[in-house]
Amino acid sequence: MAQDDIAALLLTTEAQVRYFTGFLTRFWESPTRPWFVVVPASGKPIAVIPAIGSTLMAQTWISDIRTWSSPDLTDDGTGLLIETLHEVAAGGRIAVPDGHETHVRMPLADFRRLSAACNLTSDKGIVRRLRMVKSEAEIAKVAAACAIAGRAFARVPEIAAEGVALDTVFRQFQMLCLQEGADWVPYLAGGAGQGGYGDVISPATAAPLARGDVLMLDTGLVHDGYFCDFDRNWSVGPPSRATQDAHARLCDATEAAYTAARPGVTAADLFHAMDRVLSQGSGPTDGGRLGHGVGMSLTEWPSLIPSDHTVIEAGMILTLEPGLAIGDRIMVHEENIVITQDGARYLSPHDPARIPVL
Amino acid sequence: MAQDDIAALLLTTEAQVRYFTGFLTRFWESPTRPWFVVVPASGKPIAVIPAIGSTLMAQTWISDIRTWSSPDLTDDGTGLLIETLHEVAAGGRIAVPDGHETHVRMPLADFRRLSAACNLTSDKGIVRRLRMVKSEAEIAKVAAACAIAGRAFARVPEIAAEGVALDTVFRQFQMLCLQEGADWVPYLAGGAGQGGYGDVISPATAAPLARGDVLMLDTGLVHDGYFCDFDRNWSVGPPSRATQDAHARLCDATEAAYTAARPGVTAADLFHAMDRVLSQGSGPTDGGRLGHGVGMSLTEWPSLIPSDHTVIEAGMILTLEPGLAIGDRIMVHEENIVITQDGARYLSPHDPARIPVL
Repeated sequence: MAQDDIAALLLTTEAQVRYFTGFLTRFWESPTRPWFVVVPASGKPIAVIPAIGSTLMAQTWISDIRTWSSPDLTDDGTGLLIETLHEVAAGGRIAVPDGHETHVRMPLADFRRLSAACNLTSDKGIVRRLRMVKSEAEIAKVAAACAIAGRAFARVPEIAAEGVALDTVFRQFQMLCLQEGADWVPYLAGGAGQGGYGDVISPATAAPLARGDVLMLDTGLVHDGYFCDFDRNWSVGPPSRATQDAHARLCDATEAAYTAARPGVTAADLFHAMDRVLSQGSGPTDGGRLGHGVGMSLTEWPSLIPSDHTVIEAGMILTLEPGLAIGDRIMVHEENIVITQDGARYLSPHDPARIPVL
Repeated sequence: MAQDDIAALLLTTEAQVRYFTGFLTRFWESPTRPWFVVVPASGKPIAVIPAIGSTLMAQTWISDIRTWSSPDLTDDGTGLLIETLHEVAAGGRIAVPDGHETHVRMPLADFRRLSAACNLTSDKGIVRRLRMVKSEAEIAKVAAACAIAGRAFARVPEIAAEGVALDTVFRQFQMLCLQEGADWVPYLAGGAGQGGYGDVISPATAAPLARGDVLMLDTGLVHDGYFCDFDRNWSVGPPSRATQDAHARLCDATEAAYTAARPGVTAADLFHAMDRVLSQGSGPTDGGRLGHGVGMSLTEWPSLIPSDHTVIEAGMILTLEPGLAIGDRIMVHEENIVITQDGARYLSPHDPARIPVL
């Protein structure tokens, strides 16, 4: 901040606010109220938040908590925020995260008023760089989330079989995640189809699993505010040779990136390590990337794509997520790793190359 | 749009995009990729989205789907969006939702580029007004979500009792919601404490339920993309007179607003109907409001506060959410109603005035 002559950071989104304060609540699901945290160049962060959050914020390490009764249709916190920023920054530059994977979570009309009253500038990736390298405590939380998901995935044969509807599998899998210790299950995607699935973001239909289907479940469950993000594939009945080969190749690609992963290589290097196995270097699929960071958010910086030259550092947590097109279907595989001083360590239970059979 | 000389609407958030397209996915949990929908003054909406979403978007009624391979670190869709807006709006005004409960979900740096290239203006609440009044199909979805939550709440005695940790209750209650048919459970809040709880947004701790505690669970579960949002209270062991009285008064307040609710009254009228029962008119608690809209989002317009003079119309779905302070504790109660031609109808199973005992 000193280097860029920044007097304060202004944060407006869930992960940004929680990263600096520890403020953990599912209340962000409500779009009604804006929440602000101001991080001055020196001194503790200041919370400028709706009164409904003051009790919980007071349980964090934040002591300067300024509140208003929200929703206020005339001035929903913008005046209080401007006043706070004037006090803290005294006309200096106030940096807002403005790059990839960010947005400003406040009404545009209020942001225009704020822009007119304050000297706003880009944070030039300060918050991203901080969040990208995890502390030991953060790594332990993601590891715990991965272990929970691993136990839930191991129990999928209890709930999925030929004839069971995919939406039932989705519902029951979320129950397994909760049984195994997830606090909640913000993200579940997946698919099922003959020899592969159509995409990885559609909600489940009521179509029953059929012999020859490949079933994929991909979960981002949360433990103590931290995500895992990995998937598993199953063959419903004996897998075809094509399915076996695709699964083995996906696992080989993951292993290639795992082997290459260490401090000093780049995100692009990990992409290419996988891409060489997948497509002999013919480039990315529609998914656009073969992995990404994970932590307080389901997906974080960096992206494993050819153009991301972020240098990998110890403490980064990454997903390795190779995908293959098989005719008009796809298969994807995903593991989570943490970068160590001299390599990497799997946080997700390392999947066997042989696709499991339901 | 014609009235305000608007050539196109630009939408960037999950509920806005889904309202106009039907595009339903949990993939929005990932902050990485921006998604855009352009609604021209005439003709069908146009999707400008990452390629990873094209298969799913093609299953909706949208036929003009323009994609890019995202994440693209040089131009993550902004160029394609500007090109589309120039084509559709031909220099005319492009309206962006900019009022309460909205934000622009794209990086600020990209939004600045967009602002420089296009003639952006406020949507003056067009999208809000559309979403506020629900169709019969939407009402049926929220009613189904309410019924699922009602069945889950009825089963809470199976999972909660003296000695059970609150975080276990939270986990198991989410499992009940899924068992009873929820697609997922994006929101669960609650609390427990002697004669009331501290707030309604904190995550659960491992503290066991004790005799004399009041337990509250408040869920926003989703069925087919639509939320319910209501709560229930239980007394652990026989309730004190104060707890009984508070619960009865909260139910009386709900009933007063329910009786007053009909087309032509205002959101403020419903606030005052409850507030007269709660505090003899002494004004709102820290929560700031005594109810709100619900639908594709957990909370929607209007707010039941003294300053919201939104006129209630048939088809609106509202929560009635009175709260009471009891010493340094609080108790809240919440039901969901739909406004009919001549009154209102409960969508949540109408809670008995007597607090149930665990």
